[in-house]
Amino acid sequence: MALADAAGHILARLGEDAEVDSGPAVILGRVEVLFDRLIAEHEAPGELWGLGIGVPGPVEFRTGHPISPPIMPGWERFPVREHFSERYAVPTWVDNDVNIMALGEWRSGAARDHRNFIFVKVGTGIGSGIVSNGVIHRGAQGSAGDIGHIQIVGDTREVCRCGKVGCLEALAGGAALAREGMAIAESGRSERLATILADRGELTAREVIRAARVGDAAALELLNHSATLVGQTLAGLANFFNPSLIVLGGGVASAGDAYLATIRQVIYARSTALATRELLVQMSRLGHRAGVMGAASMVLDELFSPAHLGRWIDRGRPAGMSVAAA
Amino acid sequence: MALADAAGHILARLGEDAEVDSGPAVILGRVEVLFDRLIAEHEAPGELWGLGIGVPGPVEFRTGHPISPPIMPGWERFPVREHFSERYAVPTWVDNDVNIMALGEWRSGAARDHRNFIFVKVGTGIGSGIVSNGVIHRGAQGSAGDIGHIQIVGDTREVCRCGKVGCLEALAGGAALAREGMAIAESGRSERLATILADRGELTAREVIRAARVGDAAALELLNHSATLVGQTLAGLANFFNPSLIVLGGGVASAGDAYLATIRQVIYARSTALATRELLVQMSRLGHRAGVMGAASMVLDELFSPAHLGRWIDRGRPAGMSVAAA
Repeated sequence: MALADAAGHILARLGEDAEVDSGPAVILGRVEVLFDRLIAEHEAPGELWGLGIGVPGPVEFRTGHPISPPIMPGWERFPVREHFSERYAVPTWVDNDVNIMALGEWRSGAARDHRNFIFVKVGTGIGSGIVSNGVIHRGAQGSAGDIGHIQIVGDTREVCRCGKVGCLEALAGGAALAREGMAIAESGRSERLATILADRGELTAREVIRAARVGDAAALELLNHSATLVGQTLAGLANFFNPSLIVLGGGVASAGDAYLATIRQVIYARSTALATRELLVQMSRLGHRAGVMGAASMVLDELFSPAHLGRWIDRGRPAGMSVAAA
Repeated sequence: MALADAAGHILARLGEDAEVDSGPAVILGRVEVLFDRLIAEHEAPGELWGLGIGVPGPVEFRTGHPISPPIMPGWERFPVREHFSERYAVPTWVDNDVNIMALGEWRSGAARDHRNFIFVKVGTGIGSGIVSNGVIHRGAQGSAGDIGHIQIVGDTREVCRCGKVGCLEALAGGAALAREGMAIAESGRSERLATILADRGELTAREVIRAARVGDAAALELLNHSATLVGQTLAGLANFFNPSLIVLGGGVASAGDAYLATIRQVIYARSTALATRELLVQMSRLGHRAGVMGAASMVLDELFSPAHLGRWIDRGRPAGMSVAAA
């Protein structure tokens, strides 16, 4: 989480790992503890003007409620927005985390000046945020951008956490890298991965990525397969959506230059000439900061919208104003 | 083409078959002949207020120029807009034909009240028109919606007219039905198709569709395969775009209830629960009229936009006003 000024610049950051499936009481309780600390350390009383929150699932933006979030048991229609706007007595906005990352890249990162682009996060999960005609495209239920569960035709081996088979995420995301990495370690095709597996009893995507970085051939092959599947999916979406830019972020996409290069190559090979004529495929510029910078931008956008002009008249010039983002 | 009143109602229609690859001089010459006839027969002098044109390729909407249209040799950046606005001395707008059909369904057909939907045309070619947040999404180069060249992973037998292999259009469009229908006729798997082929020396998609309508098993299988491939592609796009509605139009999609039923079934089976929870998959309500009704709507939208308010002040109340659409 972070505290930002009225220009969207980050003033201070705090963070810790959390498991979203511990449910809203546990998670939001921790967020409040950290928010309180951040505000107490960096903020004069009364200067907090708004809060922005990203959650890893679809959100009905109007109400700020998560809607059928597949990996967030207990969060269905939980009033995240009311929870914070009452606790901190400031306006609060909630959106899907990848939409917020897309907004961050749009305002302050790789996607500046683009009106039609796709931000793609490849991490444990795979998702995207979409901007159409200069407006975030959330879709009819707020689930737009959910590319992790696009089915890869012809590959039906792996059952996804969504319950279906052949989903992009189940074949190319972080869990797939960990699973395939273990298989490689057990088969003896990578001494390095076998050693780590023997030491720790398990492997994560992180170890596979590290092994690839130091040239482990089997780990490189896994990452290349993941990038190829992501590239195939994005090639179709480039034809459909005709973006001027695709921005890649997330832990797996940040594995290295080869990952980006493979995605680019597949998109350019498979999309139409017109769709790729001026298409840029780039890495996120903000990296880990994309989420909090996007959340701060969301709050500032909404605060400066006509609906909130009344607040400015009541409170006067926003000197010393700041916003918090999680 | 058609003449419409200021409410978008069609007053008169005219039409003839044409081959767009005869080039702009031939095609637009014929359009003018027919426009002149339509206007002379149904229009008092001076009552024409605008023209709307759809072309089967990507269009730079701002200028009204076709951009790299793959099936329109000779049309690259041809000034279609200037050509008509000078000839008829009225404002003219040009867009991709499927965008215009989407607009028609949106204003007067199946997509009324939907702010996020996809219109899909399955005919000789396969394409789509997209509405995001209540605005037509044209993409960075005007080629958005070009789903006919999304590659079907794993099927690389057929070379598409775009030069690549495995395109949806090359496997599921009208030309694919004709080609596979001929193969079936030659193999003896359909007596009906074999007889037509022997009589005429060739088969078109139309004959395959007619054979399916009267229960020819081999023809039905071809259409079912086409619908399955279209459904697979749309299932992924439903996850990505989260529309509230997919509207199907075009000669192949209109083959019969079974075609629509198969597409629906594949989308519901393969898309996420959230994306399909309220998703409607319906046939076009306007059919052949979608294009001209959309073109009339485009002209009316633009005429009533702030940029054109000056015209109203100069010319007064639009009594007797009409627009032409091709």
